[in-house]
Amino acid sequence: MVDVGDKPVTRRRAVAEAIVRVSAKTRRAIARGGLPKGDFEPVARLAAIQGAKEAAHRVPLAHPIPLTHVSAHVAPTRGGYRVEVAVSAEAKTGVEIEALSGALSGALALYDMIKGLERGAEIASARLLFKEGGRSGRYGRR
Amino acid sequence: MVDVGDKPVTRRRAVAEAIVRVSAKTRRAIARGGLPKGDFEPVARLAAIQGAKEAAHRVPLAHPIPLTHVSAHVAPTRGGYRVEVAVSAEAKTGVEIEALSGALSGALALYDMIKGLERGAEIASARLLFKEGGRSGRYGRR
Amino acid sequence: MVDVGDKPVTRRRAVAEAIVRVSAKTRRAIARGGLPKGDFEPVARLAAIQGAKEAAHRVPLAHPIPLTHVSAHVAPTRGGYRVEVAVSAEAKTGVEIEALSGALSGALALYDMIKGLERGAEIASARLLFKEGGRSGRYGRR
Amino acid sequence: MVDVGDKPVTRRRAVAEAIVRVSAKTRRAIARGGLPKGDFEPVARLAAIQGAKEAAHRVPLAHPIPLTHVSAHVAPTRGGYRVEVAVSAEAKTGVEIEALSGALSGALALYDMIKGLERGAEIASARLLFKEGGRSGRYGRR
Amino acid sequence: MVDVGDKPVTRRRAVAEAIVRVSAKTRRAIARGGLPKGDFEPVARLAAIQGAKEAAHRVPLAHPIPLTHVSAHVAPTRGGYRVEVAVSAEAKTGVEIEALSGALSGALALYDMIKGLERGAEIASARLLFKEGGRSGRYGRR
Amino acid sequence: MVDVGDKPVTRRRAVAEAIVRVSAKTRRAIARGGLPKGDFEPVARLAAIQGAKEAAHRVPLAHPIPLTHVSAHVAPTRGGYRVEVAVSAEAKTGVEIEALSGALSGALALYDMIKGLERGAEIASARLLFKEGGRSGRYGRR
Repeated sequence: MVDVGDKPVTRRRAVAEAIVRVSAKTRRAIARGGLPKGDFEPVARLAAIQGAKEAAHRVPLAHPIPLTHVSAHVAPTRGGYRVEVAVSAEAKTGVEIEALSGALSGALALYDMIKGLERGAEIASARLLFKEGGRSGRYGRR
Repeated sequence: MVDVGDKPVTRRRAVAEAIVRVSAKTRRAIARGGLPKGDFEPVARLAAIQGAKEAAHRVPLAHPIPLTHVSAHVAPTRGGYRVEVAVSAEAKTGVEIEALSGALSGALALYDMIKGLERGAEIASARLLFKEGGRSGRYGRR
Repeated sequence: MVDVGDKPVTRRRAVAEAIVRVSAKTRRAIARGGLPKGDFEPVARLAAIQGAKEAAHRVPLAHPIPLTHVSAHVAPTRGGYRVEVAVSAEAKTGVEIEALSGALSGALALYDMIKGLERGAEIASARLLFKEGGRSGRYGRR
Repeated sequence: MVDVGDKPVTRRRAVAEAIVRVSAKTRRAIARGGLPKGDFEPVARLAAIQGAKEAAHRVPLAHPIPLTHVSAHVAPTRGGYRVEVAVSAEAKTGVEIEALSGALSGALALYDMIKGLERGAEIASARLLFKEGGRSGRYGRR
Repeated sequence: MVDVGDKPVTRRRAVAEAIVRVSAKTRRAIARGGLPKGDFEPVARLAAIQGAKEAAHRVPLAHPIPLTHVSAHVAPTRGGYRVEVAVSAEAKTGVEIEALSGALSGALALYDMIKGLERGAEIASARLLFKEGGRSGRYGRR
Repeated sequence: MVDVGDKPVTRRRAVAEAIVRVSAKTRRAIARGGLPKGDFEPVARLAAIQGAKEAAHRVPLAHPIPLTHVSAHVAPTRGGYRVEVAVSAEAKTGVEIEALSGALSGALALYDMIKGLERGAEIASARLLFKEGGRSGRYGRR
């Protein structure tokens, strides 16, 4: 684990996304009749929030950080569904891992709900979109 | 949660992978000098095993399943690194989610170790490769 | 912990409920405009399912039991909201604690969402409604 | 999750209680001969403390808060047993959920110990008694 | 993780102990006036039970095993305090790690309560005392 | 739990060790051919780090503390293997329990890997080596 003891506490923010790629046939089936396990949006959203809150438990070398905010959005996108997670904290280290852990957790929950229809659905892209705060400053992909 | 009470206990197996895409420059830097947080292979491997074991805790509608085996392999691949997780159990439901949770957890641990060099590294693809056991039978992408 | 090693594995089922009592004013406010933290139903339902799955982690002397099914329902009732949780397993001991842990977890999540409107909302009653399976047989309050 | 990033860190305190209602016959049996699972007081007390410490893990939209103090008391009361939990922290948001999570966890542990004698024991009332700190100020039921 | 898929389910039992060595002065102080954090016996005992139940979560390569029984005893011994934990399960692999995880967790909880009096208290010995079940048969140190 | 609300936040550091005593025959076997579960060093090291991060979850009366640094070292020593864990935080209370929880977790993971060769391996000594910060000041065994 990196020693962050000498870093100042600053406001940190990070946004990450994950895409679940699903066939057009499956998307139509979901739009028509829903999923065997119920509505996917709240399940994926809450899994994403919990995934952000528990990042330090899941990632061996991550620091525990008391987060001040997590929000997650799940919506259809071209070719599937998209989970976006934004995380904030006042901390000595960044919250990128928290945001990405959230996005992946939401995507995994989505896959769990979709797999009865399409076992081959793919978590196609998960990545950091934005971060600010800390010595390394601002990073933005958009 | 789907009711699996009436399903028979059968031997289940699933294999999933996740790819972390990293720039050639970063791969060379890692090959030359390692990562600030140390050797990535065991960290990602153990995160993957724990991610498989804790899938029911992380995925809201997943069933708790006592696994009989989890193995994880992490290795360089074209364009980055690859985590492969194989999971076995004797259970009333499949272990696809356990395998995919493991692969994503390993990939997230990899990202955590690489992010100091390349914040934009991407978990480019995570998917089920294989599963067998249960009523729906065998699925194989390979 | 009670030793259940010599008990046979049988099919177990339990249903529990918890009631969150809320003022008429708050119920009208929720019906009109929702809650500051969003729609309460899926949040309470998923908290309930997780609470059932993690009962052995939360209750010191409870046995870990791999559940085959958990379902949770959250709905308005006279005087507030009601969470009902049904749990099934094939196990050497009953799942009453799992059902009640689920109902209380759902009720606590409800309180968390309502507390901005009415800090004095009360978890007025939480109890086992039904159980079957095992030596002590069937219990039903209804 | 509510964004608390702009709120000041203040000293927070909350007290909650939960009542487990038990028949006179069961209370006499406990007074005479104890419970099959042993002395209930420490079990319920420790479950309550752990329930307060882990509230953010159990309540989907709760913030993780490093607590500076948790105390729990378990004692007979008219008609049953009472768990009272007091929680303190210096934080940007209140600790009401932590206190109530603690009280419910203690009550659930009590039920677990009593259920062999009286399956119908009821968690009859769980509620916030007191809170102070933060913008909304002091709340007291007593 | 070792693959135990082909092993038969058999009855497993293991007993482990841990010794916390404490100075005579501290033992007398505890006997006279107790500990700042309260009575140590139930705290250590419950920590031990939880440590046994959560072994697979804490030990990277351990298998999750639904235990049928855990008992823990904490008592003064020559030179300090002793925690003994006995664990049973019907499983494809042994429960030695569960028993030892329990004994260590109880000892750590003891140290936590004693450290205000004697920071140098030592967990002097923790080891498996007995195990039976499985291909490797019976092991006994006593 | 001790109330630490009135204590100042200061920089805290603690170092603990645990020794796993192993026969010369087993040490030679490990040096020659490794362990059935693979290389022990990273497994024990990561278990130690996780054990430090999760101390408040495992020790009933410990405070949750956001750590700024954990490092763990695992190496052969006379008569076996040694785990040393150093923990830092800025907190109102010390991190001794975090360091000792880490050392014990690493030792337990070591035992888990060695037990196939030598069931009688012993966690022979686990203790605080050093701590600084807080009212009680510096403690050093070395």
